[in-house]
Amino acid sequence: MQRPSEQKSKNYRISPAVIGRLPRYFRYLRKLLESGQMRISSGELSRMMNVTASQIRQDFNCFGGFGQQGYGYNVKYLYGKISEILGVEENYHAVIIGAGHLGMALCGSPMFDKRGVTLTALFDVDPDLVGKTVGGLPIYPVSMLQEYLLSHKTDIAVLTLPRTAAKPTADKLISLGIRGIWNFTNVELADKTSGTVIQNLHIGDTLMQLGYKIRVASPDAPQESDGDTPCT
Amino acid sequence: MQRPSEQKSKNYRISPAVIGRLPRYFRYLRKLLESGQMRISSGELSRMMNVTASQIRQDFNCFGGFGQQGYGYNVKYLYGKISEILGVEENYHAVIIGAGHLGMALCGSPMFDKRGVTLTALFDVDPDLVGKTVGGLPIYPVSMLQEYLLSHKTDIAVLTLPRTAAKPTADKLISLGIRGIWNFTNVELADKTSGTVIQNLHIGDTLMQLGYKIRVASPDAPQESDGDTPCT
Repeated sequence: MQRPSEQKSKNYRISPAVIGRLPRYFRYLRKLLESGQMRISSGELSRMMNVTASQIRQDFNCFGGFGQQGYGYNVKYLYGKISEILGVEENYHAVIIGAGHLGMALCGSPMFDKRGVTLTALFDVDPDLVGKTVGGLPIYPVSMLQEYLLSHKTDIAVLTLPRTAAKPTADKLISLGIRGIWNFTNVELADKTSGTVIQNLHIGDTLMQLGYKIRVASPDAPQESDGDTPCT
Repeated sequence: MQRPSEQKSKNYRISPAVIGRLPRYFRYLRKLLESGQMRISSGELSRMMNVTASQIRQDFNCFGGFGQQGYGYNVKYLYGKISEILGVEENYHAVIIGAGHLGMALCGSPMFDKRGVTLTALFDVDPDLVGKTVGGLPIYPVSMLQEYLLSHKTDIAVLTLPRTAAKPTADKLISLGIRGIWNFTNVELADKTSGTVIQNLHIGDTLMQLGYKIRVASPDAPQESDGDTPCT
């Protein structure tokens, strides 16, 4: 843990709306870095990302990302700053609880490494899975979860287990002081009293947004009525 | 397809921000319906969902969801209206392309049924998977995709295949007139010229939001500097 005198950066006062946009910048900047591009103008990034150049400049200003006239932005600097803000440099360790298809899919994904998160183990109740390894990671019985968390640095638990087990497992993790829970169970978990951060991910919500967009894109979609007031 | 005289509802002018919130209302209202609750006040829903009552009322007004003084909202009416807006009643058919862990996880999920989307088949290139069935659905070779789409009503393709195959597959689907693509590949697909709607889902983005929240929740997180202007 860092002492205040070692703090890397100010705790920028960044709104949820901007925080919501930063991961996408992260992905684009990472690709630019990988391709060897050292600088980029807000105009070029705007065209790549389909975001207005003024939105980009406003967002980057939030954390001291200032472009230079005629130079644009320094890709490495921006990527570094955004990585820092989003905790990529915090060396989080994570476990996956629920080694079914979704847990396995996440385990095999490069997304954790790319974001500086180290997966260390999976947990399951299925005796046919326990004791095996996947992607080099051990699958332990859920009964060992407490013992494991007390002896291994673990910041994040990824919940990919059945709905019915979601809340009891989350309660257990919270009581053990886990810092964050990434929840895929579709049970909406909330906890205001502990220090645990809970991120609920409802994949089905984006299916519904797709359903809406398809419907209104249809040539048969009814036209809006006169006198409708747009809602925002 | 409906003729205008049969149209079920106005094409409400609903902003992306509200559309973004509707799926969550859908989930909560569905649970209320399942529990037999017939009506709910904005106050009660506000407490359940941790959204302000005024936000709720404003959002529901967007599609004619008006509460009655002393009665609250009719749960079934709200659920029905939101379902209609989000395309739940459109009887979409979907296929999954990529029968790896993620494809299998989605295939086994009740999320499609709950949202009125019928999964009809999976596709893969792996000869060990092709010809099998999962959850009662056949796994066909990707080479059969075109033939299948030309002979089976298919509105949505779910992409859960490797990154390298994402764009070629999407191009193929678009050329065949697919209405929507639900894209899990982390390759950002965009298409402005065709009528296909593309919904890119970047699961890793929410991991980064979690990483940010954990970092700022830490007792060691540096305090904001004097004179910082909050960014929005």
